[in-house]
Amino acid sequence: MTLEAIRYRTGSLQILNQLLLPHQTVYDDVRSVQDAYEAIKTMKVRGAPAIAIVGCLSLAVELRAGAGGDDPVTFIRESLCHLTSARPTAVNMGRAARELMEFAENESMEKNSEQLRESVIAWIEDMLERDVNDNKKIGNYGAQHILSGVPRDSVTILTHCNTGSLATAGYGTALGVVRSLYTLGRLKRVYCTETRPYNQGSRLTAYEMVAEGIPATLITDSMAALTMREMDITAVVVGADRVVANGDTANKVGTYQLAIAAKHHGIPFYIAAPSTSCDLSLESGRDIIIEVRPPEELTSINGVPIAAPGIEVWNPAFDVTPHQLITGGIITELGVFLPSELQAALTGRLTAL
Amino acid sequence: MTLEAIRYRTGSLQILNQLLLPHQTVYDDVRSVQDAYEAIKTMKVRGAPAIAIVGCLSLAVELRAGAGGDDPVTFIRESLCHLTSARPTAVNMGRAARELMEFAENESMEKNSEQLRESVIAWIEDMLERDVNDNKKIGNYGAQHILSGVPRDSVTILTHCNTGSLATAGYGTALGVVRSLYTLGRLKRVYCTETRPYNQGSRLTAYEMVAEGIPATLITDSMAALTMREMDITAVVVGADRVVANGDTANKVGTYQLAIAAKHHGIPFYIAAPSTSCDLSLESGRDIIIEVRPPEELTSINGVPIAAPGIEVWNPAFDVTPHQLITGGIITELGVFLPSELQAALTGRLTAL
Repeated sequence: MTLEAIRYRTGSLQILNQLLLPHQTVYDDVRSVQDAYEAIKTMKVRGAPAIAIVGCLSLAVELRAGAGGDDPVTFIRESLCHLTSARPTAVNMGRAARELMEFAENESMEKNSEQLRESVIAWIEDMLERDVNDNKKIGNYGAQHILSGVPRDSVTILTHCNTGSLATAGYGTALGVVRSLYTLGRLKRVYCTETRPYNQGSRLTAYEMVAEGIPATLITDSMAALTMREMDITAVVVGADRVVANGDTANKVGTYQLAIAAKHHGIPFYIAAPSTSCDLSLESGRDIIIEVRPPEELTSINGVPIAAPGIEVWNPAFDVTPHQLITGGIITELGVFLPSELQAALTGRLTAL
Repeated sequence: MTLEAIRYRTGSLQILNQLLLPHQTVYDDVRSVQDAYEAIKTMKVRGAPAIAIVGCLSLAVELRAGAGGDDPVTFIRESLCHLTSARPTAVNMGRAARELMEFAENESMEKNSEQLRESVIAWIEDMLERDVNDNKKIGNYGAQHILSGVPRDSVTILTHCNTGSLATAGYGTALGVVRSLYTLGRLKRVYCTETRPYNQGSRLTAYEMVAEGIPATLITDSMAALTMREMDITAVVVGADRVVANGDTANKVGTYQLAIAAKHHGIPFYIAAPSTSCDLSLESGRDIIIEVRPPEELTSINGVPIAAPGIEVWNPAFDVTPHQLITGGIITELGVFLPSELQAALTGRLTAL
């Protein structure tokens, strides 16, 4: 069964504490918006989709206990504002806050406080269910697309970073495709890059795969091309921070290099991302600014120095893969599309493949 | 000036203890063959060329003190045998031992013990000088080749692993090319990959560059393609464990992926290696067996676990770059050659470019 990183039952919420992974598996109670704020701030939970859902669910927990009294709208507004400030660059929390606030304000015109609380709770529970279902659709569309035309029983996938239950509301995007292939009995093995410098692959993806017994092998980022040549890789599947109108995709640094290597070996390269990660307001990847992070991520691990003191460092957090290299397609909850089809597909002018 | 990893003056030898790098700079005395054996075994010194020269120099130090008495040939044979057993896979020590033994046996036919000691010491001192000079030739040939036809004042190089003073008798191969460009005032910057899993780039190359004030920037292996696109890389220059007859080259894992990325960006890709690293007895890289090393190199750093327990690991130590991707050339002490010219060049049928 799928690793449960977010445990929500009406009125109660627990999260898998990622600060203790991969060495300890501990679930922490989240009893309030303030608990969620601190969990997000201290990175007990990370991954933009996961942050948004944990933030909103903590609000649902408080509302269930009657928070906000006679003026729940003010309580909801202040809570969402606080939650959004915990990690302002995680866009999904901001988007969810805007949508939820608009919904709550509309509802407040015709409902009393108790009814409003109920409908906001329902909206949040729907959001959780929708996110997980969208990921499962991504998993199934991706698995079917990869399997179509592959003349063999089982496939071998290479993936990058962590795009699984630990980064999303559940199931995962690129790792959701891996889960679907495994569930279908068609996954031979997944190769996970360790994903330097923050090691999401070796810490988190490896943890998820071990937890569920999915056959997985860890490699360094530098071994990906050799793995493609030697290990009969069927497809490379990765997630996305943002997909823009022409299909150019920003994702964890190293993605671009994997796409080049996949092209060199004639291996299809897929992006797996919900349509909410697609940003049609930007025309091409040239418009995306590369975030540069602190040198310490390269020069130390867990506070222990691992590099020569005094060396300069360049630490871009992600890179942009041009659409020409996304040869397999972009896997969304609406179907799998070529980069050139994405705009039409998302604006309803093209139906799923 | 060039970092001195091996300090030899007639009768005395010190080595920079690489186990303490990059955090402490400590030179250890090597007073005997047994000292050298232990330094090699415990990896105070590493890099196949450096191992060979330290081993032979320790023998010279003992011979200078009169070791071997009336039967220096036996002492030399036993010493070389012992030194070769310290790390049997480092081929250079084995080759040096065979050549030196043959020389010593020939000399012993016409010389007395004292004369034999002197000529063996001279042979070893010549070897040190020849190795360093060969590296300087590699550096100069490589620098000239890269600069020829580049219409700008300074160049930016990307390199992998450690191929500098810490891996060779001195100066270095690929890093020797970087040193030569710097000495000529034509190096803008060198980008060094950290070189997972053993981090030779972040520990050793970064240390050498900082020690000499050469402008250098550390990146993760996954950032190399992005660096090629964003940082105006003039050439990629790496070393070699072995170059075979058709130019296919075995080198530290990750080299193959760099060569693919360089090709994609139209950036010349160079191998820098002395002719002694060329093995014309093998026709193509397919004949080279890939050494797989222990998983712990990926799953822990300095004994501290960094990956999810239970994850499987594939840890090939090197990969083979096909000659088609070596677009810049193979830089040797005889000149720079295209892979297709290598055989003729090494067998004297082609002169240096």
